[in-house]
Amino acid sequence: MEVRQLGKILLVNAGSSSVKWKLFEPSNEEMIAKGLVERINMPGSIFEVKYGSKTYSKTIDSLSYEHAATMIFEKLMDLKIIAQLTEIDGIGHRVVAGGQVFKHAVKMTKDKLERLKGLSDFAPLHNPMEIEYIEIMQKVLPMISQYAVFDSQFFTSLPEMNAIYSIPYEYTKKFGIRRYGEHGISHDYISKRAAALLEMPLSSLKMITLHLGSGASVAAEKDGKAFDTSMGFTPLTGLTMGTRAGDTDPSIIPYLMKKLDLTVEQTLEMLNSESGLLGLSGISPDMRDYADHKDDPRVELTVDIFINRIVKYVGSYFAELGGLDVLVFAGGIGENNPKLRSEIIGKLAALGLKIDAQLNEAGEEGIISSVDSKTKIMLVPTNEELSMVRQIKKILE
Amino acid sequence: MEVRQLGKILLVNAGSSSVKWKLFEPSNEEMIAKGLVERINMPGSIFEVKYGSKTYSKTIDSLSYEHAATMIFEKLMDLKIIAQLTEIDGIGHRVVAGGQVFKHAVKMTKDKLERLKGLSDFAPLHNPMEIEYIEIMQKVLPMISQYAVFDSQFFTSLPEMNAIYSIPYEYTKKFGIRRYGEHGISHDYISKRAAALLEMPLSSLKMITLHLGSGASVAAEKDGKAFDTSMGFTPLTGLTMGTRAGDTDPSIIPYLMKKLDLTVEQTLEMLNSESGLLGLSGISPDMRDYADHKDDPRVELTVDIFINRIVKYVGSYFAELGGLDVLVFAGGIGENNPKLRSEIIGKLAALGLKIDAQLNEAGEEGIISSVDSKTKIMLVPTNEELSMVRQIKKILE
Repeated sequence: MEVRQLGKILLVNAGSSSVKWKLFEPSNEEMIAKGLVERINMPGSIFEVKYGSKTYSKTIDSLSYEHAATMIFEKLMDLKIIAQLTEIDGIGHRVVAGGQVFKHAVKMTKDKLERLKGLSDFAPLHNPMEIEYIEIMQKVLPMISQYAVFDSQFFTSLPEMNAIYSIPYEYTKKFGIRRYGEHGISHDYISKRAAALLEMPLSSLKMITLHLGSGASVAAEKDGKAFDTSMGFTPLTGLTMGTRAGDTDPSIIPYLMKKLDLTVEQTLEMLNSESGLLGLSGISPDMRDYADHKDDPRVELTVDIFINRIVKYVGSYFAELGGLDVLVFAGGIGENNPKLRSEIIGKLAALGLKIDAQLNEAGEEGIISSVDSKTKIMLVPTNEELSMVRQIKKILE
Repeated sequence: MEVRQLGKILLVNAGSSSVKWKLFEPSNEEMIAKGLVERINMPGSIFEVKYGSKTYSKTIDSLSYEHAATMIFEKLMDLKIIAQLTEIDGIGHRVVAGGQVFKHAVKMTKDKLERLKGLSDFAPLHNPMEIEYIEIMQKVLPMISQYAVFDSQFFTSLPEMNAIYSIPYEYTKKFGIRRYGEHGISHDYISKRAAALLEMPLSSLKMITLHLGSGASVAAEKDGKAFDTSMGFTPLTGLTMGTRAGDTDPSIIPYLMKKLDLTVEQTLEMLNSESGLLGLSGISPDMRDYADHKDDPRVELTVDIFINRIVKYVGSYFAELGGLDVLVFAGGIGENNPKLRSEIIGKLAALGLKIDAQLNEAGEEGIISSVDSKTKIMLVPTNEELSMVRQIKKILE
């Protein structure tokens, strides 16, 4: 009997004016090619493919999302990256909010797409765009199956105590108001990877994972599952982020509405995209841009607040986990800023955490704590795509 | 030269349909009499005075706030509690929100009252009522000075890092959006009292104070000053309280507005008065009412959440303080529920906290931790009135 080998998996990620994609060979988990389409629906759209050591690039006026999708498949064949479209077994999409409906990665049937459309309130800035792109891909290549991996699915295991808010319980139940979390694909990957590097079962470890990027979140893992997370009903809350305010008193909403003559939606939009590091510093949502402003007391305050919120979340999860075996740093800031890691750990000394200065500076994947640290501190570059490929592969097999 | 002795101080506390008052002799800090007027502006208003072992009580129809104030003074003389009104040197009012304007207790001049009126946005449920009663008292007894002690003044010392939110900095500055805290009179009193009982200067202690009543808050003290607190811009946030939701994702506001067809003010009102323990349990905002519902899983979840939020705040303040010398329990729940104290401390074992079962059961003011606890755990019945009398006395002298 001939066993057909598993085909390739294409991951696509559509933004507000761009589409990123990566083509994977699941048998060896290797990325074969990747591409980016920028300035979609604008003059001078840029279409780019990188494969092996080669790059193909073309500028076209006002490329639409649909045309961009068609071009991706045409160029994959033109450039001989694949011989025919049937080599692709599935197209994978990262979806921010799967609510309580989607607890695992799924094949996107018509019925499931309809159910997904009902969840857009949980991530109004992300879900509608993602759904639109699933539909475009279905239209362009109806014979290839679409798969969705949810950034919220890792957190569907949160204990009820940590998942719900102290609002009238009937609204929690009736309207699905709960902590959905975000960056679940990343927290899932880095917690599993950290345990694998330690050669210990994840279920035996009390762990806190820090995904620190332009969006940032903390998660606590216990018994091999997510136990708590800083992101809430939407990705607004928790840590101070690039442009998101993180935890805030809801009472400031009507107050700001009145003072600034805004609608409630405009006020929340301000908390999502003009706040956080950008709003505090007045300079940039990216801490790398603060290098030239080191003596600015507002920049100092901004960094102090960023660190303070992380320290407080680690302390609170340490307490509710009843101790901590492993603390993991990941994400753009978490992986590439040794100074920040060192400052955070310095403030956690009372919990018994101690960094190894040399390992921290080296910045390699693995342990970066000193031998006398009560908690293992680790650096684990996140790999959300690899996690997605593995989850889709599991459905395909 | 004759030294006139300091006169008496009357503390008044006006609610939505009641006025409570207590008359103090500041020289020995003794309460001479107290009273309660209930069902104000309703049929069958009840006017009651307790002095020594005696009680005077009278029922009158539709007593107004102003008439109630007049009656208090008349009865103080009729019942020979005082011989003449000039024996009263000052009338003290507890005011929830003093913003950044009032950093100490003050004599309420006309000018200060005007400034206070500008701060009602910071405690819309409390301040307007309190201001109204100051004005009524001024009208009824214009020759006696009014004093205000602010529940927020203890928190005007918060470091900027903990005081502000990660919203655009210009709004923080322009509109005074910051963490004002509440129960400051209580946290101030219990932290000072705990240090006095330990015979150590407060400035040498890292302390966390838990004021657990129908309103509930945590504060951290360091270098003899408030360092952080769970209450925010308004008293809505922080712990799960009797009817207040505590920390919540502001994004649920427009979602609930849409689902329940409410205004933003109505939604916040729901988060303030129908949420917390009441909203979670569906039974009562008072945990004592759960005794008959012990097997109800919703009641169990409610208590779990109440404890979990306290544990998380203690953990986060432990981390940012860099350790903890003293944890203090106070407030109605904190002082009278040894089982709850024991459960909270049980969950804080990883931080080195250990309760002494016997001392905890005994429930006396003082230390309730075991000798091998890394942190001293204390029970300190709060006494906001005593603190207010002392603060007003300081101005009078």
